[in-house]
Amino acid sequence: MARQAQIGVTGLAVMGSNLARNFARHGHTVALHNRTAAKTRALVKEFGHEGDFIPAESAEEFVAALERPRRVVIMVKAGAPTDAVIDEFAALLEPGDMIVDGGNAHFEDTRRREAALKERGLHFVGCGISGGEEGALNGPSIMPGGSAESYRALGPLLESISAKVDGEPCCAHIGADGAGHFVKMVHNGIEYADMQLIAEAYDLLRKVGGYEPAQIADIFRTWNTGRLDSYLIEITAEVLAHTDADTGDPFVDIVADRAEQKGTGRWTVQTALDLGVPVSGIAEAVFARSLSGHAELRAAAAELPGPERPELHPDDAARFTEQVEQALYASKIVAYAQGWHLIQTGAEHYGWDIDRASVAAIWRGGCIIRARFLDEIRAAYQGGQAPVTLLTDPTFSGALKSAQNAWRQVVARATELGVPAPGFSAALAYYDALRAGRLPAALVQGQRDYFGAHTYQRTDKDGSFHTLWGGDRSERKED
Amino acid sequence: MARQAQIGVTGLAVMGSNLARNFARHGHTVALHNRTAAKTRALVKEFGHEGDFIPAESAEEFVAALERPRRVVIMVKAGAPTDAVIDEFAALLEPGDMIVDGGNAHFEDTRRREAALKERGLHFVGCGISGGEEGALNGPSIMPGGSAESYRALGPLLESISAKVDGEPCCAHIGADGAGHFVKMVHNGIEYADMQLIAEAYDLLRKVGGYEPAQIADIFRTWNTGRLDSYLIEITAEVLAHTDADTGDPFVDIVADRAEQKGTGRWTVQTALDLGVPVSGIAEAVFARSLSGHAELRAAAAELPGPERPELHPDDAARFTEQVEQALYASKIVAYAQGWHLIQTGAEHYGWDIDRASVAAIWRGGCIIRARFLDEIRAAYQGGQAPVTLLTDPTFSGALKSAQNAWRQVVARATELGVPAPGFSAALAYYDALRAGRLPAALVQGQRDYFGAHTYQRTDKDGSFHTLWGGDRSERKED
Repeated sequence: MARQAQIGVTGLAVMGSNLARNFARHGHTVALHNRTAAKTRALVKEFGHEGDFIPAESAEEFVAALERPRRVVIMVKAGAPTDAVIDEFAALLEPGDMIVDGGNAHFEDTRRREAALKERGLHFVGCGISGGEEGALNGPSIMPGGSAESYRALGPLLESISAKVDGEPCCAHIGADGAGHFVKMVHNGIEYADMQLIAEAYDLLRKVGGYEPAQIADIFRTWNTGRLDSYLIEITAEVLAHTDADTGDPFVDIVADRAEQKGTGRWTVQTALDLGVPVSGIAEAVFARSLSGHAELRAAAAELPGPERPELHPDDAARFTEQVEQALYASKIVAYAQGWHLIQTGAEHYGWDIDRASVAAIWRGGCIIRARFLDEIRAAYQGGQAPVTLLTDPTFSGALKSAQNAWRQVVARATELGVPAPGFSAALAYYDALRAGRLPAALVQGQRDYFGAHTYQRTDKDGSFHTLWGGDRSERKED
Repeated sequence: MARQAQIGVTGLAVMGSNLARNFARHGHTVALHNRTAAKTRALVKEFGHEGDFIPAESAEEFVAALERPRRVVIMVKAGAPTDAVIDEFAALLEPGDMIVDGGNAHFEDTRRREAALKERGLHFVGCGISGGEEGALNGPSIMPGGSAESYRALGPLLESISAKVDGEPCCAHIGADGAGHFVKMVHNGIEYADMQLIAEAYDLLRKVGGYEPAQIADIFRTWNTGRLDSYLIEITAEVLAHTDADTGDPFVDIVADRAEQKGTGRWTVQTALDLGVPVSGIAEAVFARSLSGHAELRAAAAELPGPERPELHPDDAARFTEQVEQALYASKIVAYAQGWHLIQTGAEHYGWDIDRASVAAIWRGGCIIRARFLDEIRAAYQGGQAPVTLLTDPTFSGALKSAQNAWRQVVARATELGVPAPGFSAALAYYDALRAGRLPAALVQGQRDYFGAHTYQRTDKDGSFHTLWGGDRSERKED
């Protein structure tokens, strides 16, 4: 009988190739397929020595090379190309087989595809994979959705190639149908927020603290030995320490200040809006990127006046640096709290049984937001009563309590000195709004009743009420 | 020959009834139709004396009563009910006839419907109507999209029933297909932002200034005689001055502080995200409403610590009140600038020829955000070179220049004292980001190149570049 592969990968661009090599390096026999066979051959030629590959020239040959139930991982562009490849392979597979989409699909597409394939007896696994090209090769964070049955057949293989932290794989079954891609989307949304907060910290240290990029790199390196220890802080220090060879200038000064985006941050905010979850930290990060690209607006607005910025005394700069660390940590707690709130609400809305501790655990390695911090989030959701919001978990509420004064001072200073800190400000406003005994939302609801008879509820009795604003201003209880 | 109607209205709930009566009061013969004929009869019985109505029991009878080209206004629920009614009437109409959707449809639905009906030779006019029930009866602001040809046949009727300001109708052709509903959506998004800013001003005057609602009502009345003169400020004073008859407490204190929403604010932000337009003021307003409804989170977070709030000396309170007026006006400029930016971008993206001065003009009356302020926006876009952003129009840049110091102080004070002001903060951060010479977006782009090889552009030469971060850190020009 012919040799059979445990898993097959179709779509051999860099992500697909690296994932296939990762499987092979972990002792799995991997069937390979690509629309143009040249890529398949090139992969075997260059990396064939790394493990056991079965190259296939046609889809039929590829499918025939797989042991049953077949596990087909597709690594192609999200959208129409993914649908085309799914259709092609679904026609060749048999009930019980699995198609795994390792691309960045929108979770609603994943839900649609899963439902369609389930009718044909096939398992469809929308699988978030984080860590980029390097992670795909050496150990990504993996977020598979789909049925529990599919995870039994697929989980061990995915866990074997995932990143490991303290011996635990950074891979866990997230929940049914689109849950994996949903959680991956929220990961990316949090990543946007985290990057924006770091960028604001840098900007404040530079424009208010008066430090040069190399000095700020050192500050980030120091922070990376403490509670902010994370991949993003680490690479920020590397980027800031780098000098442009051409000009001798700090690298960060020769990079055009236009941050691009590929869409998952935007999806996160759009989904949160649909689900009624305030994710202001992520939204401000997405807006900051789009704002940075509006060159014409920025050129026109450059004339608008701002305040003077006095130079700080070195002692004050050092104190300010400590305050920025506090502000960054507190704002980061808020961004993650908003992200977990979205995961919880998505789980309730779509009927996913998502283990929020497990999400934190599998993000500790392999992905962009990997950080020591995630241990704390995992602990918050592990065992006992889960906190209603991360903000009130004792570890985080304690940190917020000791940080809040410095946090306020940093935002106030940024405000007075005209340095934009939309992420820090939004995070603090969220904190203050959530803890406010009374919100002016009461006035908004009163306005809505005035102009649109939208009714209101009362603090002292049940029911919906409307005041006859255009009449004698008496109150009516509505049915 | 039988008497014929110039226009017909089907769907006689309050909005439809009031619109029909408005047409009749302006001398038009109005055909009436409703799914259940009882409503039609009730309308004629109660308001038949107001003008010339032709009640119809069936859709066929209704269509037969209309002069050609027929003008059918449908006033039913957005979504599936609208599609069902369109299908029903499209089958009875002839080429050149018009279907007008006066509901709150999503502009993408309007685009789809317009394209489908165009194939059948029918005009479909997605028509934003603002002003609620009262406006529908006495003069709304009307934003019709669709073809220029349809506007020639329909415009005079719509203009006749619209609100008038200085003798000008608050109705103008917005642009092709979904343009009318798009602009109506942005109107509502701006309305959310405006209401949130007013709510924050009230909250600050109360919690920082120490004023009681009745005193704040007086402050708003005073503001309403100046540049903030607007319907929303006017009704805010009314709401704040109102005393609850049951308890003798200020009305605003017995209203539950949960602000509801119906979706157009959310649509505005989602659309802006798709189009890459930062609308942080609108987003914060939408998030503030959803946050207010998360009772469980708020209850849990009520324990989180905040700063003490010292009582202000009356002189300081008076000074603070003036600063809040400045902050409110400046933040309002930003919210409207973001809204107009979205209109401009939508027009470019969808190929609509939208007259931005005209949009300001028709919002001066009939709608919720009607305000003296819109005269200034109209002037900014009228004649000559349109400003790249409203912020740099001389009128507004002058106002921002004189307001910015007070604006900063209000946001800083709110920050220090723990009063959430997400709208004010986001507006100021937008202002400061847009005018910043350099943004830390350069760092974000550097991080993206580091972890994802997403490349960056340089400030000093063209092309896309990538630094070999994992290698010798030399730079490569990408193709």
